[in-house]
Amino acid sequence: MNYFATDRFVLTSDSARALYKDCKETPIFDFHNHLPPQLLYENRNFKDMAEFWLAGDHYIWRAMRLAGVEERCITGDAPGKEKFLAWVGVMETLAGCQLYAWTQQQMAVLFGEEEPLTLANADAVWERCNAKLQTEDFKPRSLLKRFGVAALCTTDEPFDTLEWHKLLQREETDILCLPSFRPDKLLAASKDVWMDSIKKLEKSEGIAIASLEDLKAALAHSLERFNACGCRTADHGYQGLKYVDPTGAEEAFQSAFARGIATEGEADLISSALLAYLAGLYEGYGMVMQLHSGALRNGSTRLYKALGADCGGDSVDDAPGVQSIVPLLDTLEQDGKLPRTILYCLDDGQYPALATLCAAFAAPGIKNKVQLGAAWWFNDHQRGMMKHLSYLMENALLPGFVGMLTDSRSLGTFVRHDYFRRILCNAVGDCVERGEYPLESGKKLVNNICFQNAVEYFGGDMLKAHCAKI
Amino acid sequence: MNYFATDRFVLTSDSARALYKDCKETPIFDFHNHLPPQLLYENRNFKDMAEFWLAGDHYIWRAMRLAGVEERCITGDAPGKEKFLAWVGVMETLAGCQLYAWTQQQMAVLFGEEEPLTLANADAVWERCNAKLQTEDFKPRSLLKRFGVAALCTTDEPFDTLEWHKLLQREETDILCLPSFRPDKLLAASKDVWMDSIKKLEKSEGIAIASLEDLKAALAHSLERFNACGCRTADHGYQGLKYVDPTGAEEAFQSAFARGIATEGEADLISSALLAYLAGLYEGYGMVMQLHSGALRNGSTRLYKALGADCGGDSVDDAPGVQSIVPLLDTLEQDGKLPRTILYCLDDGQYPALATLCAAFAAPGIKNKVQLGAAWWFNDHQRGMMKHLSYLMENALLPGFVGMLTDSRSLGTFVRHDYFRRILCNAVGDCVERGEYPLESGKKLVNNICFQNAVEYFGGDMLKAHCAKI
Amino acid sequence: MNYFATDRFVLTSDSARALYKDCKETPIFDFHNHLPPQLLYENRNFKDMAEFWLAGDHYIWRAMRLAGVEERCITGDAPGKEKFLAWVGVMETLAGCQLYAWTQQQMAVLFGEEEPLTLANADAVWERCNAKLQTEDFKPRSLLKRFGVAALCTTDEPFDTLEWHKLLQREETDILCLPSFRPDKLLAASKDVWMDSIKKLEKSEGIAIASLEDLKAALAHSLERFNACGCRTADHGYQGLKYVDPTGAEEAFQSAFARGIATEGEADLISSALLAYLAGLYEGYGMVMQLHSGALRNGSTRLYKALGADCGGDSVDDAPGVQSIVPLLDTLEQDGKLPRTILYCLDDGQYPALATLCAAFAAPGIKNKVQLGAAWWFNDHQRGMMKHLSYLMENALLPGFVGMLTDSRSLGTFVRHDYFRRILCNAVGDCVERGEYPLESGKKLVNNICFQNAVEYFGGDMLKAHCAKI
Repeated sequence: MNYFATDRFVLTSDSARALYKDCKETPIFDFHNHLPPQLLYENRNFKDMAEFWLAGDHYIWRAMRLAGVEERCITGDAPGKEKFLAWVGVMETLAGCQLYAWTQQQMAVLFGEEEPLTLANADAVWERCNAKLQTEDFKPRSLLKRFGVAALCTTDEPFDTLEWHKLLQREETDILCLPSFRPDKLLAASKDVWMDSIKKLEKSEGIAIASLEDLKAALAHSLERFNACGCRTADHGYQGLKYVDPTGAEEAFQSAFARGIATEGEADLISSALLAYLAGLYEGYGMVMQLHSGALRNGSTRLYKALGADCGGDSVDDAPGVQSIVPLLDTLEQDGKLPRTILYCLDDGQYPALATLCAAFAAPGIKNKVQLGAAWWFNDHQRGMMKHLSYLMENALLPGFVGMLTDSRSLGTFVRHDYFRRILCNAVGDCVERGEYPLESGKKLVNNICFQNAVEYFGGDMLKAHCAKI
Repeated sequence: MNYFATDRFVLTSDSARALYKDCKETPIFDFHNHLPPQLLYENRNFKDMAEFWLAGDHYIWRAMRLAGVEERCITGDAPGKEKFLAWVGVMETLAGCQLYAWTQQQMAVLFGEEEPLTLANADAVWERCNAKLQTEDFKPRSLLKRFGVAALCTTDEPFDTLEWHKLLQREETDILCLPSFRPDKLLAASKDVWMDSIKKLEKSEGIAIASLEDLKAALAHSLERFNACGCRTADHGYQGLKYVDPTGAEEAFQSAFARGIATEGEADLISSALLAYLAGLYEGYGMVMQLHSGALRNGSTRLYKALGADCGGDSVDDAPGVQSIVPLLDTLEQDGKLPRTILYCLDDGQYPALATLCAAFAAPGIKNKVQLGAAWWFNDHQRGMMKHLSYLMENALLPGFVGMLTDSRSLGTFVRHDYFRRILCNAVGDCVERGEYPLESGKKLVNNICFQNAVEYFGGDMLKAHCAKI
Repeated sequence: MNYFATDRFVLTSDSARALYKDCKETPIFDFHNHLPPQLLYENRNFKDMAEFWLAGDHYIWRAMRLAGVEERCITGDAPGKEKFLAWVGVMETLAGCQLYAWTQQQMAVLFGEEEPLTLANADAVWERCNAKLQTEDFKPRSLLKRFGVAALCTTDEPFDTLEWHKLLQREETDILCLPSFRPDKLLAASKDVWMDSIKKLEKSEGIAIASLEDLKAALAHSLERFNACGCRTADHGYQGLKYVDPTGAEEAFQSAFARGIATEGEADLISSALLAYLAGLYEGYGMVMQLHSGALRNGSTRLYKALGADCGGDSVDDAPGVQSIVPLLDTLEQDGKLPRTILYCLDDGQYPALATLCAAFAAPGIKNKVQLGAAWWFNDHQRGMMKHLSYLMENALLPGFVGMLTDSRSLGTFVRHDYFRRILCNAVGDCVERGEYPLESGKKLVNNICFQNAVEYFGGDMLKAHCAKI
């Protein structure tokens, strides 16, 4: 059998293998990804392996660029097979890289290939896999079911009509597809995109916006729509956001609105006022607030101008961050408006600060009310996940951990749930092997982290009912 | 035998076990903890396991809060058994957490339990251990002796009468109990507690304080009292402290004193002047200055208002720090006033900066005059200690390392010395196993780190005489 | 056989040993060191082991100072044997320290000693090794050849005559010795050394300097001389350098030049203008720009006044840095002036930021146009190199990595190339052992990193021709 489909891949001990055997069939609730709901609704076959792998995966684009591949074979107009071969040529040099592992995992688990993919067998693989991609088993929803996905949350703008989510919820009963509320553009008053987004929100909500209060009302209206569609979580990019006392935010809004864009100082006031307001609404709905920090966006102006945002030009920011998050959590808590909150940071150097912070904002009856999110983005490889799990273990955050999410735009990379489970089983399995933890307790722990903790934490009638019947 | 009492616990090689066998009986000098000397003098039995474990251990409180336990079962008024069972229920989920290991270590080593503690056997353990707690063997001093503690340093305010230390020194000859000088409140001129502490110091020293010079004189008077009682070390929280040229500190003191509280700018001047002054006194007495940095205190106002400081609401600060410590060390050294100094940082991301800094401030005839202190607080688990030891090894700081301290308010957690020794033996044992270091040299090294280095470094007639006769 | 010369030292698996066997004879291009070219040209025997080890190695000096050794036995006038014994006495306590490993490696590989060096055999070793040092095999160039060095780049001031490089290139055909351009002093307008360096540059280039344009012209003239001598790289210390828009730099130069020294603000303008100008020239020549950041220089004024710079008083700075590097790279790229660039950081906490940044500045046809340099200085030990290699693997930077450099002032420490190769083989070997990478692909990868990648990346006719004929 292909090594990457066996119970030796990643798993280094008998205890780890026993834990993995016990959790590998547990369903998946992928509570944060970037799949377009339209793609799931339309459920069309992929054209070929080039589209399947390279159409939206900036992880792969980055690796190809570093190897000196021309952009036409990455995001450009080169023929599919040329792109595919270019990627295979790079991939086979990536010893120790998660992209190598994920690629071979897909070969093994999705496509049933017996041998690892290399340039030597790439021609045959191209033919075989393209043929499979045209079958029912490789349509988007089939793939999600094969991965074991029971429910998922996409990422959506507040002015989204949610039409595809509604259609999907009506038609697809195996997979529950919920929207997530991501209002970043409405909070980014110093960015070009702000005024345009306000116009879109006016239209989607049918509410004229001429004041901060109007904007709050329109966002609240949108959030109500989202909740009617089963939304359980909101997502905020937090890099650069400084929480300040929002006194004077209305005046700042008026100036910024008249000008069409805010100064940095005005923007801090406006975003702080809106974030605090929205957080209170999230708490009211019992939703989960996800805060993502530590990204340095679009470092290369050349690349940004050529391809736009989210195309592989982002990196890790090393600026310290915890002092800008504490006042937000503290103010919300004092006002009784702190929702369940997941803190993600792209810089793993902030794990000590964030992992230890959670205990200060605990609440009775909720496991890990504030918690450190899974090893995010550039950290979702073996070493990164192990490091993250160590911090969870050492800070008593593991039992309530809500587990893995893909953050993915690419369906194939849902293999990362299996990858994560293997690493988790290794981490807990090591404790068992050393004689420091009982195997049976480990099984329960691992299973909770794989599915049940997230269902309980995100909650909501629609999600709970769907998951109860699995 | 209970696994946690065997020579397999933590120890992963024959070399590690050989080193451990050689050092496990070496006495302990716990040079920094928060035990109340009154508790040692009165030497009363603990009421039950709830008091023994939960009365003062904010590590445990944090874990229970994260699990969603109600505060009444943590620091509140729930019956002892209810608290005990609540803790056991949380503890048994903590795979990979040092709290799990320390709990089982105590079961094995102190209480002689054959099986690990779980909810399944918790009722019986509650009865058995409560009964043992009423015996002579489980009185505070007996416990310290069973742990092998030969000497210890508590943490005391400058206005402390030291009456309990004196009584203890008169009565208890096996364990030498020394005070440590912790003047943080007197240096914190921008905090409410400052004026109150000045009043207390006026009274304890019989010196009227109306100027910075008066305050220095009163502190010097107190420090003389401490030294007469065998004090060998002072301890400063350094987070937020910025060392600035103290010119103008007297004027700042006058303004702040008249107002009852200092501005941040005044406070920097006052604390810088006082710290430099005190450091010179420490150097004169041959004392050790301990600087603790990197803590973010009381992030949650709600928790702070409910329970006060030091109740589990602190976390790690990720602000960079070395540039604020260098000017202090440099100025002191230039003035011939740099005492032996131990730098602790709660953020292990500062280990590279602090570990490499030490060599710049070395001095002939003293091993590690400035050194990186043991893996502190949130870092005192296997991974944290291993990481810390790696930095010591790589920066030639291991041979002069003064080793472990508990920083503890909880007697049971003195098992951490044994835990540390196992980890240390593993680290050095790995070098031996790989063929990169001779076993016999390793034994000498490990033994020095367990006891002798600290005795030499902290020195003083009383401590040396006491340790010589062991 | 002495353990440190066997294929067990560092190597922990059969795969690692197979990879090592395949690369250990691969030649070395040491593209960054501090060897004086005069030493290579004159090629005189070392006087004794004290000179060989202690004359220029501040790694060793630091370890001796930490152990409390007097300065006279470190950099002072103690007799050679006394110094040697003092070092051996310290060295034999350094379990887990790279200095221990490098010392024993030299004993094994260079001197053919059968036993590790300890104080017990130090007298005999002193005699035997001193005798060997007088032979042809131990002259500087012989040592480099025995290490397998095919080419190297020294580090040179822009006003250097390059006379020794020219003489060497004429006479020595086995080792190609190239200069590197290090203009730090000419960019450091706020430092005392600036005006003096301008005077030296005026003289060396025969160009009067009274404006920023003049200074650029003189630097360009010098760089042309360097290129005529085969120079392929420039090296900049980047700590404290803030890249700012250089508008107004000429005015800042005029003020600073009249005053003899610049303010911090003027210095930022001047250094930014010069760095951007020089980078464009490097790009034009196809040279590599090396940027070294994260050092905190001369923390102890006492030590600096006693011994000067580069004597062991430097340490790691923990200030965040990536936001000060991005604007430089971005501006250069937009202007078409970004050369191949290697980013080094002394604080390994910046690896996440720097390793992820590289992909944003990639270019077609070049592997790793911007790349993270080898584990630098305080990081060049097993754990440090493994950590560094992990970041390269996870960020798809390993295949184009240009590999190890010594950064050394000390000939003996060229054993670090072998040490690095063993660690690299371990890292890749672990992937092979786990079944996650084919051995044959690993061999190719490792060999490229050992030599070929660097030759391609640094390029240039002289270097390529020399390496082609090996």
